[in-house]
Amino acid sequence: MTGHPPTAADIEGAAERIRGRVRRTPVIDISADIDELGGTPLLLKLELLQHTGSFKVRGAFNRVLTAGSPPLLVAASGGNHGLAVAYVAQRLGLRAEIFVPATAPTVKVDGIRSMRAQVSLIGTSYAEALAASTERAERSGGLMVHAYDCAEVVAGQGTVGRELEQQAPDIDTVLVATGGGGLIGGIAAWWSGRAQVVSVEPHGAPTMHAALAAGEPVDVAVDSIAADSLGARRVGAPGFAAATRAGVVPVLVTDDDIRRARRLLWTRLRIAAEPGGATALAGLESGAYRPEPGERVAVVVCGGNASPVDL
Amino acid sequence: MTGHPPTAADIEGAAERIRGRVRRTPVIDISADIDELGGTPLLLKLELLQHTGSFKVRGAFNRVLTAGSPPLLVAASGGNHGLAVAYVAQRLGLRAEIFVPATAPTVKVDGIRSMRAQVSLIGTSYAEALAASTERAERSGGLMVHAYDCAEVVAGQGTVGRELEQQAPDIDTVLVATGGGGLIGGIAAWWSGRAQVVSVEPHGAPTMHAALAAGEPVDVAVDSIAADSLGARRVGAPGFAAATRAGVVPVLVTDDDIRRARRLLWTRLRIAAEPGGATALAGLESGAYRPEPGERVAVVVCGGNASPVDL
Repeated sequence: MTGHPPTAADIEGAAERIRGRVRRTPVIDISADIDELGGTPLLLKLELLQHTGSFKVRGAFNRVLTAGSPPLLVAASGGNHGLAVAYVAQRLGLRAEIFVPATAPTVKVDGIRSMRAQVSLIGTSYAEALAASTERAERSGGLMVHAYDCAEVVAGQGTVGRELEQQAPDIDTVLVATGGGGLIGGIAAWWSGRAQVVSVEPHGAPTMHAALAAGEPVDVAVDSIAADSLGARRVGAPGFAAATRAGVVPVLVTDDDIRRARRLLWTRLRIAAEPGGATALAGLESGAYRPEPGERVAVVVCGGNASPVDL
Repeated sequence: MTGHPPTAADIEGAAERIRGRVRRTPVIDISADIDELGGTPLLLKLELLQHTGSFKVRGAFNRVLTAGSPPLLVAASGGNHGLAVAYVAQRLGLRAEIFVPATAPTVKVDGIRSMRAQVSLIGTSYAEALAASTERAERSGGLMVHAYDCAEVVAGQGTVGRELEQQAPDIDTVLVATGGGGLIGGIAAWWSGRAQVVSVEPHGAPTMHAALAAGEPVDVAVDSIAADSLGARRVGAPGFAAATRAGVVPVLVTDDDIRRARRLLWTRLRIAAEPGGATALAGLESGAYRPEPGERVAVVVCGGNASPVDL
């Protein structure tokens, strides 16, 4: 399967389409808050304050509105995309059927149900849920809203990059966590050639790293604390195409790096990110990515749907 | 004791003095997120994302910088003000001694210690810690940084109101939690005559309510889930003067209202507020304050220093 990265015009179109339906999430300057980072000029894009607690509503709205809001939406999700599709369905008065691995966090499953979407728990991995959802979409004639392997979804996620530029036009570098590649694909497509985009992934879910090494999306084994949000088995075609064209820099972090970044966000900033939401910061805090002196860095905190108990 | 409310010029001066030292905290529009509120146009000022997790650094910086940054700072605190004074001391290279009730949350006491301030645990109420700190300041010659009964502190907290106006000039109403009255005093002083300011307090810590009824600050009994941040025994003089002049509307909420608002912030918005930080929203969610149709309301979420375990 090949894919085309979204163009700037695609992302502008998505921004226009979803305007008023998604939140403009805040950017805060934390340069003075985390001494461990040695004074790097550092911004956080708090996309975990988006509706349903992650960026996923952007892509889901763009996909569904582009398709003319058909009555039934079908999706597979580790949780966040399911929350987003359930939210979109609720707002637009549609039905949603969401296929989720039985291992998804309770907070996500309960959230999807609370928005009156139908939830099916399938297997133990995102890949199994995806297979079930694809079959269901084909049989029902519902609109498959893929979490990342879909041009409209990637263009929608690209609005995070566009919004970030409006809020912080002078950044040199953006760090983004990668799972299926929708978010990084959209952000890389927007910033391509104008800022360096760094893909941060767990060693235990290295879809982009493996794809860049192989020259094409390939399957990886998934075993990470962040698997419920970054646990796709392979990166999607449009995201990979965008990342390749933009020359995305891939770095890997350990689960302990992610735990530490999550803890840092909580103790210093009272930001309760989920493991996947703290992964981009882990790329910086672990030293996996080392900015030059004075390099202006933005980090996308992309999700907050975890139980707070383990903070 | 009488007090004078800060003037707009005092607040402008404070904003100038503390510029670059405090964070401009974000405002988000949650009109579409909380259906229970019946479509009220609703903004949240996320002051819990301030350095040390509450607005208190604003007043503390203004007080200390106005006094010429003397080498020793002394303060009493339920926790948040202590965190703020410890932070100010650390940033300015000063020493700090903080008196805290032994009942203060671990997360606050640990935070103060982590910034290398000296912590003394005294009694079980803010009032006892205050008495000990006053004695210590007199004996040591250190600068007493009162949490709210101090004109420079109230002017510093007023910068929350000034910043909110820059971010949301068209609001009709601001809801603010009241403890010792520093925050509401500053915000009321800024918005006086231009927006309605609503004071929200627990039934179990009704300092402003009692003071407005009595025509002057009077002691109240304190017993509330939010006592560690709103548990002053009486409202401070400058805050009371500002609230009186601005015609602040006082409303009361129960501890259950506060728990529900806190839970709402977490489940819908992934915002982990402390009980005192959720109290202003409780004023709205409980119906204690009922906006007119179309009334544009802002709510200050003023603190986030609680263990996340009880969310």
